Amino acid sequence: MTQPFRPSVTIADIEAAAAVLKPYAVRTPLLSSPALDALTGARVFLKAEVLQRTGSFKFRGAFNKISSIPKKARAAGVVAFSSGNHAQGVAAAAQIHGMPATIVMPADAPLSKRERTKGYGAEVVLYDRMTEDREAIARDIAEQRDATIVPPYDDPLIIAGQGTVGLEIAKDMTALGIAPDIVVAPASGGGLVAGTATAIKAAFPNAAIMSAEPDGFDDHARSLRAGRREPHRAEGRTICDALMATIPGEITFAINMKLLSQGVTVTDAEVGVAIAFLFRDLKLVAEPGGAVALAALLAGKFDARGKTVVIVLSGGNVDATMFARLIG
Amino acid sequence: MTQPFRPSVTIADIEAAAAVLKPYAVRTPLLSSPALDALTGARVFLKAEVLQRTGSFKFRGAFNKISSIPKKARAAGVVAFSSGNHAQGVAAAAQIHGMPATIVMPADAPLSKRERTKGYGAEVVLYDRMTEDREAIARDIAEQRDATIVPPYDDPLIIAGQGTVGLEIAKDMTALGIAPDIVVAPASGGGLVAGTATAIKAAFPNAAIMSAEPDGFDDHARSLRAGRREPHRAEGRTICDALMATIPGEITFAINMKLLSQGVTVTDAEVGVAIAFLFRDLKLVAEPGGAVALAALLAGKFDARGKTVVIVLSGGNVDATMFARLIG
Repeated sequence: MTQPFRPSVTIADIEAAAAVLKPYAVRTPLLSSPALDALTGARVFLKAEVLQRTGSFKFRGAFNKISSIPKKARAAGVVAFSSGNHAQGVAAAAQIHGMPATIVMPADAPLSKRERTKGYGAEVVLYDRMTEDREAIARDIAEQRDATIVPPYDDPLIIAGQGTVGLEIAKDMTALGIAPDIVVAPASGGGLVAGTATAIKAAFPNAAIMSAEPDGFDDHARSLRAGRREPHRAEGRTICDALMATIPGEITFAINMKLLSQGVTVTDAEVGVAIAFLFRDLKLVAEPGGAVALAALLAGKFDARGKTVVIVLSGGNVDATMFARLIG
Repeated sequence: MTQPFRPSVTIADIEAAAAVLKPYAVRTPLLSSPALDALTGARVFLKAEVLQRTGSFKFRGAFNKISSIPKKARAAGVVAFSSGNHAQGVAAAAQIHGMPATIVMPADAPLSKRERTKGYGAEVVLYDRMTEDREAIARDIAEQRDATIVPPYDDPLIIAGQGTVGLEIAKDMTALGIAPDIVVAPASGGGLVAGTATAIKAAFPNAAIMSAEPDGFDDHARSLRAGRREPHRAEGRTICDALMATIPGEITFAINMKLLSQGVTVTDAEVGVAIAFLFRDLKLVAEPGGAVALAALLAGKFDARGKTVVIVLSGGNVDATMFARLIG
């Protein structure tokens, strides 16, 4: 007899996270664009999570997790490792709670992400992505200081926080009286798409949910095809600095294997097209990793014609020089 | 005995325009930003009209006006003169109605505005801003073709259309249960601020409404001080290509003289700071003319501390090269 699927995160967990987040997170708008509809032949809604506090969805999960830390453990602070968006989410959430935060970031993270993380009052510790183990560094710091580690994705409270993105989409679509056919969200560790899928499926069981990744960093696409967690091929580079996780999370993938229909991937050039389109026609700033789901739509990586498609724009923390190059 | 003020545009006109626009215009969000609140000490709401169809508020007035053209006059089409945003608004509105549109644009208008106007199916006729009279050119074309001129601002239907920006702000603030202390909107001919002021004052009679202009192109600030329409000094240049009208409109100024508390002005450098802030912290693209109200807030051109301030970001049609320069 097959074991029934017992999800680690339920719609009730996501609704609880929404209540925790309500006074602090931006309820980001679901935008539509006649230009985008005309271009794709689909009815497209963009969840503009670039407008979220700290410039990405990561604030949601970080704030939900940090809010759960018991009062007596708060003075010791939090530790996180992140290439930049989770860093800012944790730093901003800790600052709101008056807690010290230490963030372990790769030395090659975008300058603006490092600066903005410090701007939220966090201490930033840099490491070499090629030679050092960021999790070991974070664990050492946490042990020395008795601090709490805020993991980037593989945690039910983090996933529930990110799931509020999906909950807001579901509420807005319900208010519009429209059922989404397809919902696409970027994936690195898979927390955003797992939480979003959980919330969307609760309201719209027939919606197809897809993860979007950069070519080469396609561990979700590969794992969904294989039916088990598989690392990406780790070949080449990507401009999507936010989407470089090596393998899906254990907790996130258990959800995603159940709820996602497929993973799609895009090239850097396709991401550039999406960012330039957002600049020119939507007047929104997206970072490369934040634009992969839109890039997949624009590049025709799935059949969207005649369908109602929701695209999550997950973040907008991009250096001015990189942005200028992509829109130029 | 003083003549009572008989406004040419009423809140009923604006509500009628809202009904006409509902299926076609984007209901743009009113955004808040903890970063902006912290920076200014005010509670700030941004009316993100950069997200409007055609990238600026101009679609609203143009669509409302064009919708009023009698059926028998539609085949002859419309003619407009504009530096770019009204051009796109008229072109897009005419396209929706299946009407031909001819737009008289200055040869030095931003390339993206010319291209986008053509993209909406309009014929673009270029003129020299220094030596030719755009209104005369437009009149000649209109007479030859029996076409209807869609004026940029000095028309009650145009003003009522732009006023839906204020109506949406008033509705959203009412839903939030918050009364705005100050509302600031960019001004060129004054249609946007006149319509917005009419709608805001109907809901919040105590709100102070201000126009924002580039230094040197300060005809509203000067006229409001003088109590009568005065041209700007026409000295120097501005990066705010959308805000170069010489003198307030007659109809718009009759409204603005009654409803506005003052006009504020900003330098190009202050506009650049606002655009870079929007890019970095809000992930929104604004054009120079669209960012003057925010520039005035950030530069401390009026006392905002402790107040609830609504800023209209009126447009985002900026060339990539100019944008890259301003955020770099």
